[in-house]
Amino acid sequence: MPDTLEITERSRLRRLHERGHFDRETINAILDAQPMCSVGYTIDGKPYVTPTMQWREGNHVYWHGSSASRALRHSRGAEVCLSVAILDGFVLARSGMHHSLNTRSVTLFGTAFKVEDPQEKLEKLGNFVNGLFPGRYETLRPDHAQDLKATTVLGMEITEGSAKVRTGHPGDDEEDYALPIWAGVIPVQMQVGDPIPDPRNLDGVEMPGHVTGFRIG
Amino acid sequence: MPDTLEITERSRLRRLHERGHFDRETINAILDAQPMCSVGYTIDGKPYVTPTMQWREGNHVYWHGSSASRALRHSRGAEVCLSVAILDGFVLARSGMHHSLNTRSVTLFGTAFKVEDPQEKLEKLGNFVNGLFPGRYETLRPDHAQDLKATTVLGMEITEGSAKVRTGHPGDDEEDYALPIWAGVIPVQMQVGDPIPDPRNLDGVEMPGHVTGFRIG
Repeated sequence: MPDTLEITERSRLRRLHERGHFDRETINAILDAQPMCSVGYTIDGKPYVTPTMQWREGNHVYWHGSSASRALRHSRGAEVCLSVAILDGFVLARSGMHHSLNTRSVTLFGTAFKVEDPQEKLEKLGNFVNGLFPGRYETLRPDHAQDLKATTVLGMEITEGSAKVRTGHPGDDEEDYALPIWAGVIPVQMQVGDPIPDPRNLDGVEMPGHVTGFRIG
Repeated sequence: MPDTLEITERSRLRRLHERGHFDRETINAILDAQPMCSVGYTIDGKPYVTPTMQWREGNHVYWHGSSASRALRHSRGAEVCLSVAILDGFVLARSGMHHSLNTRSVTLFGTAFKVEDPQEKLEKLGNFVNGLFPGRYETLRPDHAQDLKATTVLGMEITEGSAKVRTGHPGDDEEDYALPIWAGVIPVQMQVGDPIPDPRNLDGVEMPGHVTGFRIG
């Protein structure tokens, strides 16, 4: 596998080329930092977007849902666009025009396939849980056969797409730096709060390390 | 305008109907809480998703970008799907199957129109800036005519779509509550950090209230 994705007509950045990245290292780091994604697909030629969770294994990205899900039924075997966008900050400039966002985003294009083999599906779902909460999957009530049947896992090879990254202060028009206007960056990030135990947890069940140590972003 | 969106074949929830909301109050509150959105559109029948910022004015939602943007050129006058998804927490259940997310999301369908009138476009962009940072727009270097020309504002009437909200603890299979497995919610939220002044700010320019008071989520 090449370390860099081939730039295609679809993935080429039209503007602000300096913000574009096609190397797997940058793309993978963004996918791994934020499981929330938006999957775009079409039904009767019309665009649909469904927010869901993605996880990466090597050069593939996966997502899942109910086997009854319209999104998954129409994505399977079809062209999809998967987007992950992490907001890092609001960039306040001296003119409206140069206001911007500090973001890390990835857009991937490809054809989604369904993970058909039940054993492979089980393994993927386990990887998904353990990717977020290391070791948790093995502590859970094992999946029933009907749970597995009710769940569809889709995947896509990471071959076409790009990352886009913006960092730092505004880039104002040179003459505007003389104006007495406050400019700068307001950073934002996803914060993990204190875990809230289910009131129905059994007495003596302690909060596991994969919960106390959970981080995201 | 009715207070509730008509439920259509496209916006009807196939599953988990109890999480669906079609009233404008719920939909508007989610749109207003999170400017980041994903806009889905098609080019040659293929799905594309572009992360961008949205803002709402009454029963319309707007987004903007460079007039050279491929996303905007192909969205204008075309069917689009606009998605906002706010992640509130990870829901850890006693089986993999019942793991979930606490989220507030909105999906809107419609045809995007371009704001053609220059004066109206200026007003919309001002509303966008001031919606995030009250009063900021009037403190900025006024937009140049070429800035305005280089910027496209698209809008869409909020007529078709839905909100989806999940809150609270996992809903496990009744027999699984007897298992000694930690379950609960890990809340997450977007946190605003300390603003970072641009090193090129002029001496004596103070951080305005719309920066110190900035909140999101």
